[in-house]
Amino acid sequence: MTIKLHGAPMSTCTAKVLTCLHEKGIDFEFVPINLLAGEQKQPSFVAKNPFGLVPVLEDGDFTIFESRAITSYLAEKFKDSGCDLIRHGNIKESAMVKVWMEVESQQYSPAVSPIFFQYFIVPKRGGSPDQAIIDESSGKLGKVLDVYEQRLSGAKYLAGDFFSLADLHHLGLTFYFMKTPCARLINERPHVKAWWEDISSRPAFQKVVPGMTLGAK
Amino acid sequence: MTIKLHGAPMSTCTAKVLTCLHEKGIDFEFVPINLLAGEQKQPSFVAKNPFGLVPVLEDGDFTIFESRAITSYLAEKFKDSGCDLIRHGNIKESAMVKVWMEVESQQYSPAVSPIFFQYFIVPKRGGSPDQAIIDESSGKLGKVLDVYEQRLSGAKYLAGDFFSLADLHHLGLTFYFMKTPCARLINERPHVKAWWEDISSRPAFQKVVPGMTLGAK
Repeated sequence: MTIKLHGAPMSTCTAKVLTCLHEKGIDFEFVPINLLAGEQKQPSFVAKNPFGLVPVLEDGDFTIFESRAITSYLAEKFKDSGCDLIRHGNIKESAMVKVWMEVESQQYSPAVSPIFFQYFIVPKRGGSPDQAIIDESSGKLGKVLDVYEQRLSGAKYLAGDFFSLADLHHLGLTFYFMKTPCARLINERPHVKAWWEDISSRPAFQKVVPGMTLGAK
Repeated sequence: MTIKLHGAPMSTCTAKVLTCLHEKGIDFEFVPINLLAGEQKQPSFVAKNPFGLVPVLEDGDFTIFESRAITSYLAEKFKDSGCDLIRHGNIKESAMVKVWMEVESQQYSPAVSPIFFQYFIVPKRGGSPDQAIIDESSGKLGKVLDVYEQRLSGAKYLAGDFFSLADLHHLGLTFYFMKTPCARLINERPHVKAWWEDISSRPAFQKVVPGMTLGAK
């Protein structure tokens, strides 16, 4: 059975799943979805994801959506291939992966996403970034990154001394974030900076980077 | 080893974990945290959760936070007790639980939370609900609930014909939401309404309801 990933290489959520596929060394077929043409809102795509969002993964006749659910599925199904991203079989380490996956989802992304949106999406729509939104989100993000700095001073990665989905889920959004003036929030914190340089230089993510062209001239 | 849950019964995230503990029939000790007095920001609590938020679970010497990570940990560790909330051992059903847990986290809660905040938190701080925020969130929520209505017309619960964490995670926030004028968004959709009546009447959640006193006179 073939694994098909429907998505857009420039999308941060597609990047998450692509990175996971590469970390696992899984063969797959990539089906590009043209977001600018609104292909993700067409009936044939909405039949796969009722929310009309990329990415969607098809594994034979089984279809799933939501990027973090897809990576969890792949990490579980292919637990013996490539990097063990969920610390399968170790309930405490696996729980710490879940804790820091939730931190990314509930604390980190809600602070970074508005900054990403202002710098990368608003200009595409002909507007200018709203500095008040950027400042408010930067304040929230700084507090989150203070916790990361402390955490990463005692462990190499977020969930412990092992790379996991908790780290991987940060890659797509942070890649674009690091191209904004707010990147200083990471660069000013030595342990967070070292962690970012480590996880973003992994070969799996480096295969994904060339497709992340949002904002490129 | 004793399981200790630190939290506040009125908190929606504490309610999630309490419901899970009751669904699983797990003995635990409840340690009340006084949110109004700011106990969650005190050093002794921040040592348990660096973000200073309830709930926190201690299982012997193992400490975890983030409510959705705690319920996943409990559902995994106690997989043979009470209701199987993650469809352990069935990779497709388990993946569907993850998909709809992510939908709750990424689509449903971000639409409901601002409505909850305007009706329950703003007045406690001496303000009045901002109707523009309520209207905007109601519009987003209506679209999410249209997908739920379609989904629940073909399956009894979100992940399939079985109650799971995907449903359980909706309970705390939706309980308060149903006390607002926006409750019509659920009541107008017959399958969503029937699902809500079903999941909210489960004995485990009914044990949690008496503590959910936010907004009570």
